[in-house]
Amino acid sequence: MLRFLTAGESHGRCMIAILEGMPAGLKIDLKEMNIELKRRQLGYGRGDRMKIEGDNVDILCGVKNGMTLGSPIGLYVKNSDFRIDDLITLTNPRPGHADLVGCLKYGHEDIRNVLERASARETVSRVAVGAVCKLFLEEFGISVLSEVLAIGGEKNKEKMNKKIDQARKNLDTVGGIFSLTAVGVPPGLGSYVAADRRLNARLAGVLSSIPAIKAVEFGLGTGYASAFGRAVHDAIYYSKDKGFYRKTNNAGGIEGGMSNGEPIVVRCTMKPIATVGKPLDSVDIVTKKSTKAAVERYDTCAVAAAGVVAESVMAFELSNAMVEKFGGDSMNEVKRNYKAYVKGIKT
Amino acid sequence: MLRFLTAGESHGRCMIAILEGMPAGLKIDLKEMNIELKRRQLGYGRGDRMKIEGDNVDILCGVKNGMTLGSPIGLYVKNSDFRIDDLITLTNPRPGHADLVGCLKYGHEDIRNVLERASARETVSRVAVGAVCKLFLEEFGISVLSEVLAIGGEKNKEKMNKKIDQARKNLDTVGGIFSLTAVGVPPGLGSYVAADRRLNARLAGVLSSIPAIKAVEFGLGTGYASAFGRAVHDAIYYSKDKGFYRKTNNAGGIEGGMSNGEPIVVRCTMKPIATVGKPLDSVDIVTKKSTKAAVERYDTCAVAAAGVVAESVMAFELSNAMVEKFGGDSMNEVKRNYKAYVKGIKT
Amino acid sequence: MLRFLTAGESHGRCMIAILEGMPAGLKIDLKEMNIELKRRQLGYGRGDRMKIEGDNVDILCGVKNGMTLGSPIGLYVKNSDFRIDDLITLTNPRPGHADLVGCLKYGHEDIRNVLERASARETVSRVAVGAVCKLFLEEFGISVLSEVLAIGGEKNKEKMNKKIDQARKNLDTVGGIFSLTAVGVPPGLGSYVAADRRLNARLAGVLSSIPAIKAVEFGLGTGYASAFGRAVHDAIYYSKDKGFYRKTNNAGGIEGGMSNGEPIVVRCTMKPIATVGKPLDSVDIVTKKSTKAAVERYDTCAVAAAGVVAESVMAFELSNAMVEKFGGDSMNEVKRNYKAYVKGIKT
Amino acid sequence: MLRFLTAGESHGRCMIAILEGMPAGLKIDLKEMNIELKRRQLGYGRGDRMKIEGDNVDILCGVKNGMTLGSPIGLYVKNSDFRIDDLITLTNPRPGHADLVGCLKYGHEDIRNVLERASARETVSRVAVGAVCKLFLEEFGISVLSEVLAIGGEKNKEKMNKKIDQARKNLDTVGGIFSLTAVGVPPGLGSYVAADRRLNARLAGVLSSIPAIKAVEFGLGTGYASAFGRAVHDAIYYSKDKGFYRKTNNAGGIEGGMSNGEPIVVRCTMKPIATVGKPLDSVDIVTKKSTKAAVERYDTCAVAAAGVVAESVMAFELSNAMVEKFGGDSMNEVKRNYKAYVKGIKT
Repeated sequence: MLRFLTAGESHGRCMIAILEGMPAGLKIDLKEMNIELKRRQLGYGRGDRMKIEGDNVDILCGVKNGMTLGSPIGLYVKNSDFRIDDLITLTNPRPGHADLVGCLKYGHEDIRNVLERASARETVSRVAVGAVCKLFLEEFGISVLSEVLAIGGEKNKEKMNKKIDQARKNLDTVGGIFSLTAVGVPPGLGSYVAADRRLNARLAGVLSSIPAIKAVEFGLGTGYASAFGRAVHDAIYYSKDKGFYRKTNNAGGIEGGMSNGEPIVVRCTMKPIATVGKPLDSVDIVTKKSTKAAVERYDTCAVAAAGVVAESVMAFELSNAMVEKFGGDSMNEVKRNYKAYVKGIKT
Repeated sequence: MLRFLTAGESHGRCMIAILEGMPAGLKIDLKEMNIELKRRQLGYGRGDRMKIEGDNVDILCGVKNGMTLGSPIGLYVKNSDFRIDDLITLTNPRPGHADLVGCLKYGHEDIRNVLERASARETVSRVAVGAVCKLFLEEFGISVLSEVLAIGGEKNKEKMNKKIDQARKNLDTVGGIFSLTAVGVPPGLGSYVAADRRLNARLAGVLSSIPAIKAVEFGLGTGYASAFGRAVHDAIYYSKDKGFYRKTNNAGGIEGGMSNGEPIVVRCTMKPIATVGKPLDSVDIVTKKSTKAAVERYDTCAVAAAGVVAESVMAFELSNAMVEKFGGDSMNEVKRNYKAYVKGIKT
Repeated sequence: MLRFLTAGESHGRCMIAILEGMPAGLKIDLKEMNIELKRRQLGYGRGDRMKIEGDNVDILCGVKNGMTLGSPIGLYVKNSDFRIDDLITLTNPRPGHADLVGCLKYGHEDIRNVLERASARETVSRVAVGAVCKLFLEEFGISVLSEVLAIGGEKNKEKMNKKIDQARKNLDTVGGIFSLTAVGVPPGLGSYVAADRRLNARLAGVLSSIPAIKAVEFGLGTGYASAFGRAVHDAIYYSKDKGFYRKTNNAGGIEGGMSNGEPIVVRCTMKPIATVGKPLDSVDIVTKKSTKAAVERYDTCAVAAAGVVAESVMAFELSNAMVEKFGGDSMNEVKRNYKAYVKGIKT
Repeated sequence: MLRFLTAGESHGRCMIAILEGMPAGLKIDLKEMNIELKRRQLGYGRGDRMKIEGDNVDILCGVKNGMTLGSPIGLYVKNSDFRIDDLITLTNPRPGHADLVGCLKYGHEDIRNVLERASARETVSRVAVGAVCKLFLEEFGISVLSEVLAIGGEKNKEKMNKKIDQARKNLDTVGGIFSLTAVGVPPGLGSYVAADRRLNARLAGVLSSIPAIKAVEFGLGTGYASAFGRAVHDAIYYSKDKGFYRKTNNAGGIEGGMSNGEPIVVRCTMKPIATVGKPLDSVDIVTKKSTKAAVERYDTCAVAAAGVVAESVMAFELSNAMVEKFGGDSMNEVKRNYKAYVKGIKT
């Protein structure tokens, strides 16, 4: 079992994470990890915060001479914009954000006490965790990649950017869709035997935990709703070389709650960022009087970044499923078990 | 914390569940519970199995004189079609089902060893669990209801049925969409502080764990992808009567990973059932020769039934979130804590 | 990961359990399982209930033609003395039992609502679960056995029985000690990397969860308190045949939170049963007036039975640690991974 | 639910922890927290490391202007002796330590890769976590305190120190016993309804997870083994002032897996530290030749320190049980629920 916890506020000292359960003997490539953090900061439509933060991860623990020890891995990313104790109180919650409910739930009278943690900056920690997991998956030839499919309804790159420009000009934000593809996943991760072992359920869970994700689809996704079964189920074939394989992949690589060996393909819809420059109607949580919502620094569009976060959480979940399926406490042991299985199911 | 485990094979003796963590002092209405099981069996397009099984739940443990004791609740539904040890071996896996991968993963050479548990009959247990949870939620004025929105792309009841007739005639199956609405949920279930505490993440997880569900959308869902922020975020208002409220509910009742007091609205896409009467190409898992897939008894369309299962898993997850938020070991205690909170957030 | 839930009240219809995560392809020997249930009923000093209940386990699900499917296993033991809805209200809690606090916690006004689940009859479910786990461990040459070491301070079999006779005559009960030994456990189960991965912590947890267990000791146990380090730590030796080995086993087979390959040896102290025939002072929970505690059917001494329960929970925990360490979904796969590891650590 | 993860190697950069689930609005007193860390470093018989490390905790996240936010709390303690990447390889494992098995399990060929995490320095993180939990418990009038009862078999303070002097002179180490008492715990934490909800099982688990703890006893503990029931069970009394109460506390404050309102009293036996100055027989893990075990800096006796660690893990577990029982996301809410319950059970 792999597990992690994260901590950190947007304007606190740092974003941190502890990743527990990673086998010993995994080579840690810090440069590759930082590329992931960098990728999270990019994308057309990002706001000013991204110029302030040049995210770099420090590995605090769990690694010795560049190799994992099997002990928990401590990850640390500094916040340049550190001034949490000096922030001015805010009482006008933003529609679409955690502000209002967060205050009700936790008894806060300053929405900063909510938004500091509810901020998407929290995903830095998850990308750091995912970056370690990507290194783990790489050892098995598994890779996870995201791609922006649409912004504001447009699927053409130039038109997408125009939508973003339009939103920015209107002090507005805009939503979109990205896809997520995992290649090289062996058949048999996840299971149908219990609801919470289903790989797609776990992936849907972690993907929906990314701020602003409002829809998750596997393979054909919503397209299945208007289809007949014979037209969409992926017929099964076999060859000595490939073992069992498919000519289509409508299922998105998952059948019966398990990876089936085909690429895992997911599509996520991201709503427009909740902070908008020309604010919506709101209510002061203390005086209860009508007001306009707070305006914090914001991204006009962060679909590309959300895609990178999604890669990270998927990388974690797949790594977790690998460790569960193959056991093992060292990379050698996990690999040995993995290879024996993969060899076995071809024959 | 509430938790449950289920067990049972499609042609085994029974489907069972243990639900642990339910507070003491909840009145159990067996009749209402059996209505849920009955509702799961209905819907235009169901197959013959539904005529065989007249599902009724027996409460084996955890209830005394019609009240929960606080101890684990044992639930039992008999299978009329019990003959698991006499089933004939099958080696031709159905595309879209767990058959093939299940055999690879668990080392089976008979796909029956997979399909008996991978069968949607397993959801009987979950509906039984959900039926208890619905009784629990009722005590707080919370209800969960599903509705079929579309079948085979059609949204009109008559046209839906025609699609099902067409599928049946072609020995085929057909997919669809249902919505799920939870009314009466207080603001503040779930949280943004950790990824796995987000209510929408948990709901997406459990809804995706229902067999054949391939997409889950909250509120506007995929519609968010083509929207600007100012047009879709739900402005915040306040009145002495209602407390904070919204005039729109695009968010589907969840902001920042928490219920916001508006109805929770989710939409699920179900793929066509994987078993089809005119079978697709497959491969014999033993001989590796081309063949046609197995044909088991099947439903032409089970979207309505999946909606009932979805109500059940959502009822469980909301109950769990209630118990987590309000603590308490007896209904009196949970209610007392709940009322004090609800009163507090209005003022 | 293996997990289980149990349910059942002492005078309810049955005691049940669901065991989830057991690999496929394990041969189930029902006769051996029932021997475990029978062993739990024996021991000098047992009460009348044991004459009423001839415990036999029914396997409701998860097994087909005598082999585990990989799906959850449902276990059922009938209660002959089934009359839960007709029991007369009791309001005089027994000191040492869950009666009083259970009523405060769950808001009950009848201690029966507590004692029906708090009864040691609940351990029937755990023995049934443990019996499956013992079959699993057997496949790896691992066995777990308990032995009564002392009753009422006496270590000689005859004197032990006399203590029990004395207690019975005085309408009293008597405590004792049993040991628990697991042989054949490979080195490396559990871990030091996180507190909750330590094997001894897990074992101490599950052993302490057995009713009436008040002390758990590993190896020398409390004897370590008066020892110097050089005298008690188990020096390390090596031979080609045995690999690493020890000439002493003061550590009780666990170092650094991990099995070290030597027998795991634990000692548990059981308090005298809380129900006594000549009852102690108590208070009526409704009237708050002084009274004598309730007298239910009781065992004068159940140390031998507790040992069998302890074997069961230890068998579960070791099986869980095996599945975690070696992964695998079928017995073949677990064994393949296990053998490769065991071979590897010898060289 | 409260949870935490820790990370950190003995000679790594730092020891860290993330504590998740702590309610909002708890005042953090850093000075009190550092007193706990300091207490962990004291006690007669400590080694040189304690002179090097002047442990002080930094709160990285989760706290704003001295109050918890409800978000995860990041805790950081610097290691002064930071040189993990420059340590010389060691291949001679210490009997009684994790060295040998850790290498077998994780495939290490340098016992440093094990001992850096298996070191008792890891408990710094747990004391930091426990220090937050103590602040939480204080708000409910709950305190946890440890006391050294015996060293090397001696119970008199002067004789204890002599035992330690004797051990030090002989380049040896010595074990002992400490007690742990929690005062102010309300009745009803934990439960009998499921094995893993029993408070004593949870406490036995976390206490056994402290390095070198080999026995855990509740109340009379092993003393119960030679007792008759009528002589040791704590009769129940009632007064308007106190509610239900006892005149004796042999049960150590726990009946039926639940706190009963009396002080929780536990006794732990600590084995002598495994590192000894005059090393025991060992085997080189690479050459397999006989050798003497490694000698690292060590404590002659750390029973007092282990007591402080035990207070910490107990404080965590009790806080967790409080949060579970009373729910709530802010201190105000937890307290409101707590007070209503406590008031209710008196009448």
